Amino acid sequence: MAEQPAWEQPRNRFDPLRAVSEDELDAIHHASLRVLSETGIDFLDVTARSQLAAAGADVEGDRVRFEPSLIEALIASAPAEFILHGRDHIRDLHFGGNHIIYTSVASPPFVTGLGQGRRDGNRRDYRNLIKMGQVLNAVHTVAGYPVEPMDIHPSVRHLVATHDMLTLSDKASFVYSLGRQRNLDAIEMVRIARGIDHHTLEKETSIYSVINASTPLRYDTVMLHGIQEMSARNQLIIITPFTLAGAMAPVTIAGAVVLQNAEALAGIAYTQVVRPGSPVAYGGFTSNVDMRSGSPAFGTPEYWKACLLGGQLARRYGLPYRSSNVNASNSVDAQSAYESVIAIWGAVMGGVNLLLHGTGWLEGGLLTSYEKFVIDADLLNMVTEMLRPVTVDDASLAVEAIAEVGPAGHFFGSPHTQERYASEHFQPMVSAWSNYETWQEKGGLETHQRAERLAQEIIDAHEEPPMREERRNELDEFLERRIQEGGVETDF
Amino acid sequence: MAEQPAWEQPRNRFDPLRAVSEDELDAIHHASLRVLSETGIDFLDVTARSQLAAAGADVEGDRVRFEPSLIEALIASAPAEFILHGRDHIRDLHFGGNHIIYTSVASPPFVTGLGQGRRDGNRRDYRNLIKMGQVLNAVHTVAGYPVEPMDIHPSVRHLVATHDMLTLSDKASFVYSLGRQRNLDAIEMVRIARGIDHHTLEKETSIYSVINASTPLRYDTVMLHGIQEMSARNQLIIITPFTLAGAMAPVTIAGAVVLQNAEALAGIAYTQVVRPGSPVAYGGFTSNVDMRSGSPAFGTPEYWKACLLGGQLARRYGLPYRSSNVNASNSVDAQSAYESVIAIWGAVMGGVNLLLHGTGWLEGGLLTSYEKFVIDADLLNMVTEMLRPVTVDDASLAVEAIAEVGPAGHFFGSPHTQERYASEHFQPMVSAWSNYETWQEKGGLETHQRAERLAQEIIDAHEEPPMREERRNELDEFLERRIQEGGVETDF
Repeated sequence: MAEQPAWEQPRNRFDPLRAVSEDELDAIHHASLRVLSETGIDFLDVTARSQLAAAGADVEGDRVRFEPSLIEALIASAPAEFILHGRDHIRDLHFGGNHIIYTSVASPPFVTGLGQGRRDGNRRDYRNLIKMGQVLNAVHTVAGYPVEPMDIHPSVRHLVATHDMLTLSDKASFVYSLGRQRNLDAIEMVRIARGIDHHTLEKETSIYSVINASTPLRYDTVMLHGIQEMSARNQLIIITPFTLAGAMAPVTIAGAVVLQNAEALAGIAYTQVVRPGSPVAYGGFTSNVDMRSGSPAFGTPEYWKACLLGGQLARRYGLPYRSSNVNASNSVDAQSAYESVIAIWGAVMGGVNLLLHGTGWLEGGLLTSYEKFVIDADLLNMVTEMLRPVTVDDASLAVEAIAEVGPAGHFFGSPHTQERYASEHFQPMVSAWSNYETWQEKGGLETHQRAERLAQEIIDAHEEPPMREERRNELDEFLERRIQEGGVETDF
Repeated sequence: MAEQPAWEQPRNRFDPLRAVSEDELDAIHHASLRVLSETGIDFLDVTARSQLAAAGADVEGDRVRFEPSLIEALIASAPAEFILHGRDHIRDLHFGGNHIIYTSVASPPFVTGLGQGRRDGNRRDYRNLIKMGQVLNAVHTVAGYPVEPMDIHPSVRHLVATHDMLTLSDKASFVYSLGRQRNLDAIEMVRIARGIDHHTLEKETSIYSVINASTPLRYDTVMLHGIQEMSARNQLIIITPFTLAGAMAPVTIAGAVVLQNAEALAGIAYTQVVRPGSPVAYGGFTSNVDMRSGSPAFGTPEYWKACLLGGQLARRYGLPYRSSNVNASNSVDAQSAYESVIAIWGAVMGGVNLLLHGTGWLEGGLLTSYEKFVIDADLLNMVTEMLRPVTVDDASLAVEAIAEVGPAGHFFGSPHTQERYASEHFQPMVSAWSNYETWQEKGGLETHQRAERLAQEIIDAHEEPPMREERRNELDEFLERRIQEGGVETDF
């Protein structure tokens, strides 16, 4: 396959952009606290409500209200930085600070690519995409199912899919919070795959889950169970309200972010009630809807501003910040690319720490595209390179080389160029820079066509990362036993 | 045609990003001054050389060397901000400060779109593209020929093309510096079209020209004549070295920018020798070449860093900054979009004042695309919206609206939404946000196909901006007379 940059976590050396002044940020913060103290938020779990009441919140039926000082006191214990451990230590990730983590796309029900059209998610594509995430260094961790393997029965899907994830990849793992037992199964499987005991697992955060509020102002039972099981074991929770301005959130960006922030603060506070000091990230996911059709839009100017605002808020609270690489396009065309880069621009300039849905997202998250997966990996590699400092020293300033070449000369053959040309510039996997005639001779392939070819090469390049035999056996036995037990109960 | 945002000049409210520290910026600055004092730069015009010698430069044959203090003294008289006047006052543009100007693409020899394939530039397409630049509010000024009208004989091309520019559009005009008489003809035509006398024209900068160094380290005769005629009349010069790292410039980004900066400083200094205080902008155009093929690349990580560096240098010298919206793709695909947005990202975060080639550039500048023209206009409108402040006040914070809707409610029907939904969010012209099924029912058009349809609507929407009859007659008579005189001498 094409050469790619080495495994590396980028660091953001730029000061984040501020979308609003400190006073305006305060106004958003205080508005969110007013929402939590006056309107309150529903927690649909009796254990959660009694824990919150014991912590000082005002509970009335499902509704929980927080005094501003209580929220501030609770979130203060959340750590600003920590390590998310990979299956193997080489994949350990710095979470927070100016470190950035890229993930593959998570959760689309449909998939397209590899010469076939749009189809239901299935295990074959799921495994292919996990393999791509393992091979591509631009993917630091698998953030859930890169496509939903719908041909695996829901009662055992989490078991089979997590087993695939842990055997095909050694990168840090993810679990969906869709019922307490699913969280427990995945946590146990990660522990086995890492070959560590329960005590070590509690010290070494090794798995994460995204918790979405049911906007507006509600946390559902399974999400709260997820926090209970994960935070209690010191595993990572990404609290992410999905606040669509004009639909489930106010039409104004400020108002949608007030709601996002209220929900995020309540969720984050709850993780700290469950276990003070447990790792948690602030997720921002505010966009706007097309007011003509009600369809969600992504990578829009409003989305971009909300990315910056989310980052400002996360920094205000001293929390790591999660954002996403998203677009609303139905094909891997110009729109898919410009919306993606606008989303990445907002995330990076907003100070993102975890860029979810980094590779492969299309159709507002309903479709995974192999082509987009490869293009996005290239894009993320470019971002990593953009964030690398410019080398400024006597050799790079090249005053002598300029003097040697002189007016009307050429640098191609100069020693200064010859010593450096092979490694000086970033080499993309997908971009074609040849002139029109050469490009035509090579078949005139558009970007998505070149990416599709590369996708197959990337899958073919996959090798299972070695796992010690006793761990593998234990993992296989766990899977077999839990399948025999019937997995988890389902509603159907 | 589709609705578009009103005519407006965006302002950049963000602090520009710094690619390097102040010390590193100093190192680049001093390296450039060393190049100009030790190696020097060729000025291929005897008048220019004697003017420079009189100003204190060291002249030896074609070679001109500048002491660092001389460069600093000369560029100090260049203004930081000024007005570029449109044909009509409504089109006057703030140049410098935190104001941004977008232009259409300039100078490609080929054109594609409107249902026809790639073809030689010609007057019909030239006129169409001028019309689009007039209709689209995202284009603030026409920056040269949006495609080269090659079917007009070079001896009179500038006359016919400038006449088209001034009659089809009332936006500020441009002239190529391709020989003294061409500059003089265009300056006179702009004066006539504006209906002002020579004295007023000297007070009101109304036309601009891009001056490229012949990298490395040479200014050609026609470029110097352009400066002589334009700067003497207080018209605007954009000095833009085109420094391709690894080809005509050092392979390192720092080195390529040292060369860019040396050439820019020498050219800017010369404008101030011709007329102290005459308007001039600092143009940055450093990118890298594909070291395998020698083809120029655009919108790369290296290009992005050079954009930031160029902005830092321009600000150091207190000069307006010119950058570009560029890509190397051969079709209006994902690559064309992601390279463009990366280029815009670098320009905007670098503090750009003039974004040249804003709409329509493809194939590294060899091809104008009607589709890309429309997509880019949409993109630039998005950037304008991104730069608009987030409204933060009691109404936009929406605490009451959130309380009214409450948990598990919906904002679609709330009064807060109903009062605002029609105007709250940016409406793109090209982006499609409908779901897959609806999109398929509408024909499943990709972005470039939707843009092509819009291009024809935009052309159809064009109306000639009214010009007073006496001015129009004088302009027509000037054109006729100069054509009868044979225009200008050509080499062939």
